[in-house]
Amino acid sequence: MTAPHPFDNAISLQPQGDGAWQGHTSPPYANFIGPFGGITAAQCLQSVLQHPQRLGDPVAFTINFAAALADGAFSLHPRPVRTNRSTQHWIIEMRQGDELVATATALTAVRRPTWGAHELRMPEAPRPLDVPRTTRRGVAWLERYDMRFVLGVLPRTWEGQGSDDSTSRLWVRDDPPRPLDFASLAALCDVFFPRIWLRRARQTPLGTVSLTIYFHACAQQLAAAGSGYLLAQARGQGFAGGYFDHAGQAWSESGELLATTHQVMYYKE
Amino acid sequence: MTAPHPFDNAISLQPQGDGAWQGHTSPPYANFIGPFGGITAAQCLQSVLQHPQRLGDPVAFTINFAAALADGAFSLHPRPVRTNRSTQHWIIEMRQGDELVATATALTAVRRPTWGAHELRMPEAPRPLDVPRTTRRGVAWLERYDMRFVLGVLPRTWEGQGSDDSTSRLWVRDDPPRPLDFASLAALCDVFFPRIWLRRARQTPLGTVSLTIYFHACAQQLAAAGSGYLLAQARGQGFAGGYFDHAGQAWSESGELLATTHQVMYYKE
Repeated sequence: MTAPHPFDNAISLQPQGDGAWQGHTSPPYANFIGPFGGITAAQCLQSVLQHPQRLGDPVAFTINFAAALADGAFSLHPRPVRTNRSTQHWIIEMRQGDELVATATALTAVRRPTWGAHELRMPEAPRPLDVPRTTRRGVAWLERYDMRFVLGVLPRTWEGQGSDDSTSRLWVRDDPPRPLDFASLAALCDVFFPRIWLRRARQTPLGTVSLTIYFHACAQQLAAAGSGYLLAQARGQGFAGGYFDHAGQAWSESGELLATTHQVMYYKE
Repeated sequence: MTAPHPFDNAISLQPQGDGAWQGHTSPPYANFIGPFGGITAAQCLQSVLQHPQRLGDPVAFTINFAAALADGAFSLHPRPVRTNRSTQHWIIEMRQGDELVATATALTAVRRPTWGAHELRMPEAPRPLDVPRTTRRGVAWLERYDMRFVLGVLPRTWEGQGSDDSTSRLWVRDDPPRPLDFASLAALCDVFFPRIWLRRARQTPLGTVSLTIYFHACAQQLAAAGSGYLLAQARGQGFAGGYFDHAGQAWSESGELLATTHQVMYYKE
């Protein structure tokens, strides 16, 4: 018998009998303060994925981080607020005690075969194992991902000599490897370090406030991606008045677009 | 005394006394079936903007279209679910009778001066008045916008000869002109016709299911943009299994990035 993967432990939720689910923050996914936002996103999405009334698979998911999570228990309150023939809309609230710490919305849908042809092609990149694994920097959640930067790695020095272009491109997968699914893909969509670090080569207090993911793959395509690497890419867009955003994409190792993602972060100065 | 602008009529909401607001769909913003999605987004955002408890201005806004709106009355139920020192999180539900027709979340915040330097620059384009106004096509809401396409106009013929690149770029403003504000900018972020029409040059039943807007401008910057044109741009990303998405941007006539936007649409075949 093998031990469960740390990701499966982290997204494990216990029913509370009143439509709520209880989970716990997970030390293997700890960030500088509180948990890695990607694991919080995965926990929120998981409350929908395991819901007995769920119809179809995720198409769109938005999470708003309303407060820093304290280490410990949280409750999740997913509500299917509208169910159509092939689509379903969800509102999810995450609380610690009486405090709301995150809100989310999700659209799940039964997808059907249609014309399809992704427009965003995977950029050229050397194969994952031809790129050295990037050194980890001591925060627990970074140990949970095998990251191999092709472009836009963290600045070597923090001397304020930033770049006009904040694009990063990296191969990434769970460590230890784990077959891809919707919850793990949601977490992987948040592995990008803050784009402002590349622009400024300067550290400032910051945090994600809203994250959106559009899923372009069905469950079978995620299964086909298996435990291979994803090519993940992100680029900053607007930076002003304490908030900046980025747009990102994730392709399977074989070049299939699996998800697009956007987020906006707060920064202090 | 001049008559109110049709946009102001469309976003007019009456308090119902129990935290709910009543509004009506607006014939000048009618689409083929039901209203233009951008006006629905603006109505949802307006329920937050005019809320007596609102703190700060919009930073992030996501709306999920759960059902086709019927022409007539709707109610809006905005809830400030978490208020911090300088940020506030909202959940908004839109209903017609007992039916939920849209959900939304918003983050408002008191923005403060910080380092800032937008990364996405406005693309080169001829001045708005040097570009001919694009012919309108008979749907009411199209009459509410002065659109001047620089790139990626609707296919001239619907013969299935599409393009690999679905980028559109246009100058756009309210018609009649109206000073820009957060509500009208939200609506303007939805003026893009479906990207799949450019890819396929073929019409298929479709509709937006989720739309996200990140605001990069403060109220003063929107006021400075006045009733000038915006340069709006969008490009499709993934197209498969009945859903596709696009990423878009809007700059003021003077080249300031005002908003970035993303949406995912359902399509039938």
